[in-house]
Amino acid sequence: MGETQGKTGIGVIGLGKRGRGLLKQLLKMDNVEVKAICDWNEDWLKMGVDSIVEAGKPMAACVRSYEELLAREDIEGVIIPTSWTSHVEIMVAAMKAGKYAACEVGAVASLEECWQLVRTQEETGVPCMLLENCNYGRDEMAILNMVKQGVFGELIHCECGYEHDLRKSLTDGYDSGHYRIHHYLHRNGDNYPTHGLGPVAKLLNINRGNQFLTLTSMASKARGVRDWARVNREEGHPLREAELAQGDIITTMIKCAHGETITITLDTSLPRPYSRANRVQGTKGIWMEDNASIHIEGRSPEHKWEPFADYREEYEHPLWRRYIEEGVRGGHGGMDYLCLQAFVESVERRIAPPIDVYDAAAWMAVSILSEQSIAQGSQPVSFPDFTKGKWIRRKPGPASIYSLETVDASVFA
Amino acid sequence: MGETQGKTGIGVIGLGKRGRGLLKQLLKMDNVEVKAICDWNEDWLKMGVDSIVEAGKPMAACVRSYEELLAREDIEGVIIPTSWTSHVEIMVAAMKAGKYAACEVGAVASLEECWQLVRTQEETGVPCMLLENCNYGRDEMAILNMVKQGVFGELIHCECGYEHDLRKSLTDGYDSGHYRIHHYLHRNGDNYPTHGLGPVAKLLNINRGNQFLTLTSMASKARGVRDWARVNREEGHPLREAELAQGDIITTMIKCAHGETITITLDTSLPRPYSRANRVQGTKGIWMEDNASIHIEGRSPEHKWEPFADYREEYEHPLWRRYIEEGVRGGHGGMDYLCLQAFVESVERRIAPPIDVYDAAAWMAVSILSEQSIAQGSQPVSFPDFTKGKWIRRKPGPASIYSLETVDASVFA
Repeated sequence: MGETQGKTGIGVIGLGKRGRGLLKQLLKMDNVEVKAICDWNEDWLKMGVDSIVEAGKPMAACVRSYEELLAREDIEGVIIPTSWTSHVEIMVAAMKAGKYAACEVGAVASLEECWQLVRTQEETGVPCMLLENCNYGRDEMAILNMVKQGVFGELIHCECGYEHDLRKSLTDGYDSGHYRIHHYLHRNGDNYPTHGLGPVAKLLNINRGNQFLTLTSMASKARGVRDWARVNREEGHPLREAELAQGDIITTMIKCAHGETITITLDTSLPRPYSRANRVQGTKGIWMEDNASIHIEGRSPEHKWEPFADYREEYEHPLWRRYIEEGVRGGHGGMDYLCLQAFVESVERRIAPPIDVYDAAAWMAVSILSEQSIAQGSQPVSFPDFTKGKWIRRKPGPASIYSLETVDASVFA
Repeated sequence: MGETQGKTGIGVIGLGKRGRGLLKQLLKMDNVEVKAICDWNEDWLKMGVDSIVEAGKPMAACVRSYEELLAREDIEGVIIPTSWTSHVEIMVAAMKAGKYAACEVGAVASLEECWQLVRTQEETGVPCMLLENCNYGRDEMAILNMVKQGVFGELIHCECGYEHDLRKSLTDGYDSGHYRIHHYLHRNGDNYPTHGLGPVAKLLNINRGNQFLTLTSMASKARGVRDWARVNREEGHPLREAELAQGDIITTMIKCAHGETITITLDTSLPRPYSRANRVQGTKGIWMEDNASIHIEGRSPEHKWEPFADYREEYEHPLWRRYIEEGVRGGHGGMDYLCLQAFVESVERRIAPPIDVYDAAAWMAVSILSEQSIAQGSQPVSFPDFTKGKWIRRKPGPASIYSLETVDASVFA
């Protein structure tokens, strides 16, 4: 058993491309034993087995149903990189089975799913985590460090987004039966808000003394995927004539309880370089990702930008400073590994994960509220208070520890 | 008389800082004679006189009431750089007096003012122009040229703004009795949208086959001016304790008739470098001002930015190419001169100005609609159709000629 060896027993449910990537990260961790892997697709299961062999780790059980995996006693936590519409169902089943549960990011379809997560955790006492890797991005964590030290003064406005040209992968997905393009064909809203919003929510202490109050969203027309398919796919391909529901650009504005505003952009079906479009602005300064620049009053020359790189050097987050010394590992510039590690550590220490069920519910709700607002001609819609009032007195505590026990927790306070 | 000398007789109403700057530009134009200047402030009138003497031009009549100026027969057009709340009153009076009228940009206070402009022009047949200098910005005009040539494909989304740290000048204004800070004390909305929106409206053919349909606005809390005054003004200064109505950041989203979206940011009371925050995005590419970069599909390396400077060299607007050869003149990088020249040319040739009354009404309406939306918790509000349906069949024509007769008009088509 994992416990007897001093290792944490983890299961992986879903071995698509993302699931196989996360499995490889888990196999690098000395404190983890992957006890079981699960997928209905035999080819993907086989690829998981290959990864375990390659890593020289003990073989995991291979199962085709998540119920079977969740029934195993040697598993303490499960990673759920499945499709958007199955995340919550499996998260709920995992918590009911007493397993710490962690799912990948992506659009949920109803507020009831968010409530299901909250309700299940409150009833079972078993925690769950949203695996928002961008909360562990190097820039994002340096900015968190700066905000906590007051470098930006009082925060006033943040911007963020997911700006990633997915036209080819969406079209390939259509050809291979992947689920994502079908959301684009039928739904219209910000289907992927958390890469930008997760880090911003932590800066603004959402669910811990602050709250998202309302949002309003607007969608542009949809042209990108269709036009791309017309150039890159043969006559007769359905996407060449498809009328996607999903607008090319979705802009969302959020108002917070303490008067801060947030703008989120989803931009995934037009040609462009990748960006998370971060902007953090307070009474003492502003940081922008897109020009890699910062301006801090009293330090920067008046009305001039300075390179952010110099500030990152100075304000590197302690977690990242140590991570760089020890060697950065894994995908997406190293943040995937840190995010998974934070989950594993929560399981190991039986503590609340740093991105908890209230975070998951509030961040994921943006997809649905955005759809509702767009469907109603950009009417403002209200966020449910998933904490049921507890946000008023909740303070950043152990739950804000971003992994690595030796890092001074005070920087997350 | 101006006409007999082959010169256009112009009057200037309002000799504050901006008015005196524009007067100096007019005095550089060989085809213009400034026949009269007007202000109630004797010191400012005197400064205007000094400028005329310094330029070696014939002395203008000096009057204290605009009615007196408008009654003069030697004046064909008037420039109205007065305060925000007097622009429309004087524009209307000018048109009724048969003078081509041009006012500076700034917030109007009611939709009725926009309708007054439209109604007066339609009744009198006398044109008016909004002096939106940023429509003549070098980057903006190169982008216009590129859009008209199809480089960006079908336009989908634009962003723009007025991001200018005005904390010192707002506070100085309070001390000197200037009007602008009083808007900040009492109103909450995008009070200065046209620097960004004017050029974007021309890209999207607003009022000429396209239309602004609705907008929704959101305001952050207000901290910037107060916090700045606390550091930079002595104990007892009213702005140290002032509760400004105007939020520090105002974000506005506009939906257009053909499905394009526009985001506008007003950011004038927090520390930051200047930007008009332009972003133009179509099915074939994207330009961003803040990183001075562009990405054009099939030309730029995949998923990579290129410096915009190279493209500007290639797509320099003909007006600007000639302007650079002849020598760039005047304020704000030369665009003030071009904008005034376009007005003067319209007067001289008795043609419609390039930024006409429908443009002025639609662009200025944003301030009011933004306030209404914010006051209603970011409800969407509808734009009036100031063209009363004529936008459906209006096409870019002579009115789109951006001055300089020798420039091929086809690039504005």
